[in-house]
Amino acid sequence: MTDTPSALDVLLALLRCRSVTPAEGGALAVLQGLLEPAGFAVHRPTFSEPGTPDVENFYARIGTGAPHIVFAGHTDVVPPGDEAAWRFPPFSGAVADGMVWGRGACDMKGGIAAAVAAALAHVARHGIQRGSISFLVTGDEEGPAVNGTAKLLDWARARGERFDGCILGEPTNPTRMGETIKIGRRGSLTGDLVIEGRQGHVAYPGLADNPIPRMMRALGALAAEPLDAGTAHFDPSNFEVVTVDTGNPSANVIPAACRARFNVRFNDTWRPDTLSAEIRRRLAAAGIGAHRLTFAPCNALAFVTAPGPFTRIVAEAVEAETGVVPALSTTGGTSDARFITRDCPVVEFGLVGRTMHAVDESVDLADLETLQRIYAGVLAAAMGPGASGGLPTAAA
Amino acid sequence: MTDTPSALDVLLALLRCRSVTPAEGGALAVLQGLLEPAGFAVHRPTFSEPGTPDVENFYARIGTGAPHIVFAGHTDVVPPGDEAAWRFPPFSGAVADGMVWGRGACDMKGGIAAAVAAALAHVARHGIQRGSISFLVTGDEEGPAVNGTAKLLDWARARGERFDGCILGEPTNPTRMGETIKIGRRGSLTGDLVIEGRQGHVAYPGLADNPIPRMMRALGALAAEPLDAGTAHFDPSNFEVVTVDTGNPSANVIPAACRARFNVRFNDTWRPDTLSAEIRRRLAAAGIGAHRLTFAPCNALAFVTAPGPFTRIVAEAVEAETGVVPALSTTGGTSDARFITRDCPVVEFGLVGRTMHAVDESVDLADLETLQRIYAGVLAAAMGPGASGGLPTAAA
Repeated sequence: MTDTPSALDVLLALLRCRSVTPAEGGALAVLQGLLEPAGFAVHRPTFSEPGTPDVENFYARIGTGAPHIVFAGHTDVVPPGDEAAWRFPPFSGAVADGMVWGRGACDMKGGIAAAVAAALAHVARHGIQRGSISFLVTGDEEGPAVNGTAKLLDWARARGERFDGCILGEPTNPTRMGETIKIGRRGSLTGDLVIEGRQGHVAYPGLADNPIPRMMRALGALAAEPLDAGTAHFDPSNFEVVTVDTGNPSANVIPAACRARFNVRFNDTWRPDTLSAEIRRRLAAAGIGAHRLTFAPCNALAFVTAPGPFTRIVAEAVEAETGVVPALSTTGGTSDARFITRDCPVVEFGLVGRTMHAVDESVDLADLETLQRIYAGVLAAAMGPGASGGLPTAAA
Repeated sequence: MTDTPSALDVLLALLRCRSVTPAEGGALAVLQGLLEPAGFAVHRPTFSEPGTPDVENFYARIGTGAPHIVFAGHTDVVPPGDEAAWRFPPFSGAVADGMVWGRGACDMKGGIAAAVAAALAHVARHGIQRGSISFLVTGDEEGPAVNGTAKLLDWARARGERFDGCILGEPTNPTRMGETIKIGRRGSLTGDLVIEGRQGHVAYPGLADNPIPRMMRALGALAAEPLDAGTAHFDPSNFEVVTVDTGNPSANVIPAACRARFNVRFNDTWRPDTLSAEIRRRLAAAGIGAHRLTFAPCNALAFVTAPGPFTRIVAEAVEAETGVVPALSTTGGTSDARFITRDCPVVEFGLVGRTMHAVDESVDLADLETLQRIYAGVLAAAMGPGASGGLPTAAA
């Protein structure tokens, strides 16, 4: 048995990379330097798209058989903001008070570090007698997410890669390890509503047509009734107006138009087409007159990995290491799991996310070690000696 | 009897002055050159205020006795916009197709021209056997209205000037001469409402507090009930939201604040203090939570010149020349009459306003001549030989 790096070792190396999205910052090179010597075949494809920055991505696999477990994630981080406001410089990788400090500590260099440490230890201990382990890592999760996981999956699929289960190490626990496994996410649909009226002098409202009261009626009609009551694995869908704007500088002028943007986080009651049709129906019923309603392209459908063998393996590993029975949740924002769900069962489980995107982002060292043990437990259950199996496979 | 200039002569001289607010442009000099030789004592005070342009004003009086009739108005005009879009250059004073063309033709160099022509003819014919005639003219009506009529009235009051009736020659007729005398105007009050919430991620609405639904509730509560049912001389007060703005660029962020501005055109049911109190009461009753409500300084109170001897003299002159019984109206925007109402009965009657502020502003030459005869009729009724009197006087 070789001496393999700890999750802390890996995390400190990653934290010292200034990989503010979309910069690679040396983080993928760190992964390559750790995984290649252990026998992983490493690929670093760069993806491009007009109007977006080129982004480096990373794929590494060891083994050729099934089951094929893939750890997905991202090494890019959000900007640190005012670095002087941090207790420790955000890219210094400090350890103090039992915590590891730095931008990305919980979102999600910590998750990747735990997975790398677990995989390297698994391989060192057992070799790859059966199954395969992969890393599918992007540098475009905090950015536009155009040149990241979605394209990396296309690339992998074209190579013939097939996965049997994916763990995405986003920070899923609100306050303590073990609370929450995410088995799905709501979709996200953004709409823009423009209501046009007729400009005029405020002293002659009868000669004008003020679009603002009509906008209020429209938004009221859209929000009046819940979209649904929730489903087996989801809370009710949520409609939220995020901005209303007119831009009229003159108190004596009735404006010609008013604009609003709304965002719906929708559950598996809806597809984008059925949801947009329902929104159009509500607007039509409200009788608000001339308006223009457009929807932004929807790249986040609602999805759920129905509880089954893979979710059970992960949940049991979590319970074994934390003593907590994790909730199988579908709350929160979108994540790259929405892309992976087309390929295999995907669950998200990582660190405690309390400080994500905040100054003094940090993670409890004990939590980091717990996460490494949980991931090790998943690998052992899926492909270790004496693995009970039961994981349906499609791996090539 | 001397040969005095026609209203057309005076109007053409005024139209050829480029008196775009606040420029004098030679227009007041034209008035001085016409009135001073006829015996009027002319004053041209300039008023100043930090942050606003200096503005030249004009006051001319003939006679010392009562009744003292004052013609009020302004020679400044709004900008012409694209001069190439005009049929005739906007400051050329063209006559064609029975119309007089140019910026200010109806608003309100035409009104002033008719009054000057009427006054000069009256004086030439009758002298000033009784009563007094004045002109109170500003160059700051289309601008901020800070260094104009309000200060000119202060100045006149300080000189001991007392007026018994004022005609303001704004274009009051929507489509044909004789339709409308304005005997008052609504007040104008502008308020700004800021609703503060708590910013947050749109996927976690429970952790945020979206100010937009609260704004919709607030504006709904303000507009839900009419402010009043109208009064003897006024339509109901009107509440109008003129802008709602959030300025949130992110579809995945719940905004921290939302702003709205509204304008109330209010009748004599209200004073600014009672109206703002009613608005605060409605907001408080709506339970919209944290908000800030501020009001712009109100310089336009509702006022009305109750029908009486002076309005009767004007209405009879209008009917005699047009065959139309004029409506005594209080509709429309604010005007400088709101300042004059403190000093004496004031009515507004002028030309047809259809082209005011528009390209190809113009006035029917026959209407201009009719207006001169109406003003002459008012002077004859108030102070001509055989004037029936009946006009209460306070003149000094």
